[in-house]
Amino acid sequence: MERPRHQGMAKNTSMRWRLPLVCLLWEVAMIVLFGVFVRFGAEADAHWEEEKREMNLTSDIENDFYFRYPSFQDVHVMIFVGFGFLMTFLKRYGFGAVGFNFLLAAFGIQWALLMQGWFHSFKNGKILIGVENLINADFCVGSVCIAFGAILGKTSPIQLLVMTLFQVTLFSVNEYILLNLLHVKDAGGSMTIHTFGAYFGLTVTRILYRPNLEQSKDKQGSVYHSDLFAMIGTLYLWMYWPSFNSAISDHGDAQHRSAINTYCSLAACVLTTMAFSSMLQKKGKLDMVHIQNATLAGGVAVGTSAEMMLTPYGSLIVGSISGIVSTVGYVYFTPFLESRLHIQDTCGIHNLHAMPGLIGGIVGAITAAAATEDVYGKEGFIKAFDFTGEYQARTPSIQGGFQAAGIVVSLLMAFAGGAIVGGILKLPVWGDAAAVTTRALPYSAAFVPEDEESDAYHMHSPDKAASP
Amino acid sequence: MERPRHQGMAKNTSMRWRLPLVCLLWEVAMIVLFGVFVRFGAEADAHWEEEKREMNLTSDIENDFYFRYPSFQDVHVMIFVGFGFLMTFLKRYGFGAVGFNFLLAAFGIQWALLMQGWFHSFKNGKILIGVENLINADFCVGSVCIAFGAILGKTSPIQLLVMTLFQVTLFSVNEYILLNLLHVKDAGGSMTIHTFGAYFGLTVTRILYRPNLEQSKDKQGSVYHSDLFAMIGTLYLWMYWPSFNSAISDHGDAQHRSAINTYCSLAACVLTTMAFSSMLQKKGKLDMVHIQNATLAGGVAVGTSAEMMLTPYGSLIVGSISGIVSTVGYVYFTPFLESRLHIQDTCGIHNLHAMPGLIGGIVGAITAAAATEDVYGKEGFIKAFDFTGEYQARTPSIQGGFQAAGIVVSLLMAFAGGAIVGGILKLPVWGDAAAVTTRALPYSAAFVPEDEESDAYHMHSPDKAASP
Amino acid sequence: MERPRHQGMAKNTSMRWRLPLVCLLWEVAMIVLFGVFVRFGAEADAHWEEEKREMNLTSDIENDFYFRYPSFQDVHVMIFVGFGFLMTFLKRYGFGAVGFNFLLAAFGIQWALLMQGWFHSFKNGKILIGVENLINADFCVGSVCIAFGAILGKTSPIQLLVMTLFQVTLFSVNEYILLNLLHVKDAGGSMTIHTFGAYFGLTVTRILYRPNLEQSKDKQGSVYHSDLFAMIGTLYLWMYWPSFNSAISDHGDAQHRSAINTYCSLAACVLTTMAFSSMLQKKGKLDMVHIQNATLAGGVAVGTSAEMMLTPYGSLIVGSISGIVSTVGYVYFTPFLESRLHIQDTCGIHNLHAMPGLIGGIVGAITAAAATEDVYGKEGFIKAFDFTGEYQARTPSIQGGFQAAGIVVSLLMAFAGGAIVGGILKLPVWGDAAAVTTRALPYSAAFVPEDEESDAYHMHSPDKAASP
Repeated sequence: MERPRHQGMAKNTSMRWRLPLVCLLWEVAMIVLFGVFVRFGAEADAHWEEEKREMNLTSDIENDFYFRYPSFQDVHVMIFVGFGFLMTFLKRYGFGAVGFNFLLAAFGIQWALLMQGWFHSFKNGKILIGVENLINADFCVGSVCIAFGAILGKTSPIQLLVMTLFQVTLFSVNEYILLNLLHVKDAGGSMTIHTFGAYFGLTVTRILYRPNLEQSKDKQGSVYHSDLFAMIGTLYLWMYWPSFNSAISDHGDAQHRSAINTYCSLAACVLTTMAFSSMLQKKGKLDMVHIQNATLAGGVAVGTSAEMMLTPYGSLIVGSISGIVSTVGYVYFTPFLESRLHIQDTCGIHNLHAMPGLIGGIVGAITAAAATEDVYGKEGFIKAFDFTGEYQARTPSIQGGFQAAGIVVSLLMAFAGGAIVGGILKLPVWGDAAAVTTRALPYSAAFVPEDEESDAYHMHSPDKAASP
Repeated sequence: MERPRHQGMAKNTSMRWRLPLVCLLWEVAMIVLFGVFVRFGAEADAHWEEEKREMNLTSDIENDFYFRYPSFQDVHVMIFVGFGFLMTFLKRYGFGAVGFNFLLAAFGIQWALLMQGWFHSFKNGKILIGVENLINADFCVGSVCIAFGAILGKTSPIQLLVMTLFQVTLFSVNEYILLNLLHVKDAGGSMTIHTFGAYFGLTVTRILYRPNLEQSKDKQGSVYHSDLFAMIGTLYLWMYWPSFNSAISDHGDAQHRSAINTYCSLAACVLTTMAFSSMLQKKGKLDMVHIQNATLAGGVAVGTSAEMMLTPYGSLIVGSISGIVSTVGYVYFTPFLESRLHIQDTCGIHNLHAMPGLIGGIVGAITAAAATEDVYGKEGFIKAFDFTGEYQARTPSIQGGFQAAGIVVSLLMAFAGGAIVGGILKLPVWGDAAAVTTRALPYSAAFVPEDEESDAYHMHSPDKAASP
Repeated sequence: MERPRHQGMAKNTSMRWRLPLVCLLWEVAMIVLFGVFVRFGAEADAHWEEEKREMNLTSDIENDFYFRYPSFQDVHVMIFVGFGFLMTFLKRYGFGAVGFNFLLAAFGIQWALLMQGWFHSFKNGKILIGVENLINADFCVGSVCIAFGAILGKTSPIQLLVMTLFQVTLFSVNEYILLNLLHVKDAGGSMTIHTFGAYFGLTVTRILYRPNLEQSKDKQGSVYHSDLFAMIGTLYLWMYWPSFNSAISDHGDAQHRSAINTYCSLAACVLTTMAFSSMLQKKGKLDMVHIQNATLAGGVAVGTSAEMMLTPYGSLIVGSISGIVSTVGYVYFTPFLESRLHIQDTCGIHNLHAMPGLIGGIVGAITAAAATEDVYGKEGFIKAFDFTGEYQARTPSIQGGFQAAGIVVSLLMAFAGGAIVGGILKLPVWGDAAAVTTRALPYSAAFVPEDEESDAYHMHSPDKAASP
């Protein structure tokens, strides 16, 4: 094994400075941009006492922090533990999945604070941030974690960071078009996070198609313990999804309603997933991949409509359908995508995020179009859809149309953006393409020790550490 | 291995349609019943703005959502991660424990929302739900998760769902008798959740007694990693138990007090558990099973009294005693139950839930009987025990008597209900009894791949997936 | 293997009663002291209704419980899951790390409630506790968990409990000097928790130096799954650190600001850690130990200043620097400490807590010294630094000086206290010193089964359990 190892070292020597350089230059850029632009919003600034008087607030408890911080922490867990551990089901990718999810998310949230800040929190030349901005940055990075699920095992860390940079940018533009120009409601991000993120990732993985990836299929298998680790990811996503969909809804009834709708949808989704998994599997066994993934489709599919008057039974219906669609997708669509369309969807995000995201967008459009003053109350109706100011004259059916337009825009942004970014990732500047082709898991290998390198795992050994 | 495999397939063919059918029919029934009965409560409904005016609330922060949602999420984690992972200590049951806990809980919470809704939230023909209903549904399902711990490894998934259906129903009836008819306090569910759930499960496992289960004892062993997975369950239950006991207490001091009492009780319980584990074990070693389970008894044992003026030192006493009782139970009672009474208590729920639950009920009765207006204050006294309306004339000692009656009712419901449901589960319609006898882990095996079937683990393989 | 086993039994026979006795006596002492001293604070007492009227509060939501309980639960997870699992990266210490962390923390929080109560919540002869006391007790025990990271593998459980007892005491004294006598701000505990805890632990491990510990180095290695377990610890610490630093800050803007600053600092820290890990490692690979530890330095390093107007870009700068310092520490300082200074720092707490803690103290002093009424607003300035009463005349630069003095006091307390406690731990009364020397992992071995004892893992076996 001497030769390939030396070759590897030669290749790695050029790589050795690339990741550090990208990370450090990026962080310096962030410091400069944050220094120029980012300040505390009124509710996090030391001038809060004056602000309180101005806004006629009588208690500190009315600070937005207390409305949203618990939900923020739940979302934070979903992004870092949920998405990270969900991808540990592949026995050789486990640490790479968690580690690189960690890296790209920490990298992405800083850029998301800026991009989303310029679009939504820009006042007098400064971005004023509060807990809602932190949630939105996590949401934005969530769409990158989704796309990461499609290209897992195909990219170097550098490529991953480049993709994050572009995807966060495109996400923010798409979000601005939907929320501000089309005046669309999408608090749980069925369109902005899931549909956009998934189709973006699928387009990128299509462009990065590598036929010989199959050779390393044995590395893709799962083992008993990796399945239990993956269930940690699954369960945290499932349990905290009500927080995800309600985190940035209006204070009061909207947050409350979002959580209930999501809870109901997810419960129903588990039942139909188990049913179809058992039905479509030989011998009636349950497939762990379905349990780990399709059970979550119910959260995605009510992302747009959860804060609306979807009603608990409406949520059960949506959850049931999404579980079926997602499970069927794992059994039939994923193999089809790979064999016919050359889309290698490592984690099956088409089934967990893309299709349920589309369902979510459509359900949102229908629920908005079906809204009546009778169901929402006069005030509630205006508050739920922000039919104030220039949108005073919007009717539910028009709103439904705009919601539908939001789906189309998200899809177009995902396909066009994914194609461009996929092309950029194919440029030979991001690493040795040959290395990528011959070694199936270049970035995962950055973590997983091979036998001859297993000493890389040890620490505390002075002689080794002293001569790195 | 050809023959048994074909046999297995033949048996499974009949099973193949049973689980899907049950799940799908159930979900359709839920959708219909939710459609007829379930609507949003006032605080989750879009008419909230009008409600706020009516109730003279000045801020959205007074929505019940903000009082209870963080606790709800903690309880949610306890049910799905806590109970699920606690049972992963058995090396061959790991995935089955987490997966089937997931299935039964998602199945049960929908039925619990209806059952508890009819009893407690029924107005003008509709069940009006809010975050408190979600917590109560999780609580109700928690009692099923407890019972599941006794029968782990003995039932098919169908039997599990049948048990869930009946147990949720009986739980709701028992809860109604205690809370509404006896006017008993039991916010943390020492009686309604733990005593009822555990004795119900123990009765069921007695009826399902299978002498030859011992043959597969080697599969019940734990391995190093499965013990670490189980500690995830233990710690999340331990850490979040203060939220469990305070989740549905009255706003303000009662929630605050419940959390403090539970925190103190749990801390003391760890100390006495470690002491007795080391004392009763040969060579003074600590037994992992005690650390994983008996340390939690302190939470169970203050379930009824945590919201009362138990005081921190009272909590330390209760926690200390429960840790001792539970550890001694694991060492002496569990073997006795199995060898003499033929009660195979897989996870030792008699030690973790049944005995500490009884302690909790008794401590609650004593604490209530010892209450004085001096300790609680005039207003606090009435508020703490709801001594208003028809209960205006109740004295602490009478309340103590009713609390004690609540224990007896819960025990009777558990024994009678468990006997009936155990009998129902023995009916030959739920699966091939022979298969159950000859294969020790029929349902767990639905998840765990055997060697010749290990390909069932893989996904993304088009040829296989296309011909399921 | 008969002989050494019998020897072990002989040794263990004397040990057998020591741990139980210490735990039980301790718990009895706690019950007595709690009985004499500890009562519910006004916000957890049943007299709360009267209190509310007195304080002119209009709603139960203004109970401190709702301001701090979600953060408390996050801190609780950090102490028990975060610190516990972070130390599972060593393949033979996994269960011992989690189990003994659980024991010492449950042991320590009871004593911390008393010690901190006497100093900070003592009124009319009683310690009045509320949720803030629970957080502070967790914080105090956090400093013991940190010190535990340095001596992991060197002490018996008894020694661990003795250390906890003394360290909690010294922590409380040091905290009192800093917060009350020097009037220093340190909400996230850079000085009181991290600097004190780490240098205390490092001093103890220096005194307990054992040259032949190297022999068992092979047991210190990590394995694939233990690295994933450790990532659970890492991620929960990382995600919840904003709650840690904001948990006891003033209501309103201060809590809000602390969370934002910590979020920013941690994100930056991940980037610089990855950069330097890749740069300093041969072949440019990422070292899992750095990812697991150094990424957290950003939380430590803003512990003092997070609630001040550090600003988001200031946080990015501090986080970036601390990631670099910590990673460089793992590569160069840890081997140096071990080989030259004979400080065996098992988990590298010098890099994760000691140096970043010092940075945190210094950044806090500078941020305080640089405060102006312009930046904070007149009211905000006084509120942020409590410049009221006898401290009315303090200027920012004087405050900066006192902050710096707080670092020095913490260091002195840590070195002096660590030396004394280390000496006490060397006394021959805590266990057979020979046993400690010849068996590298005496306490871990209390959990980890060796081959001939693997039956200790099993439960439910009546014959064994009946004759303990």
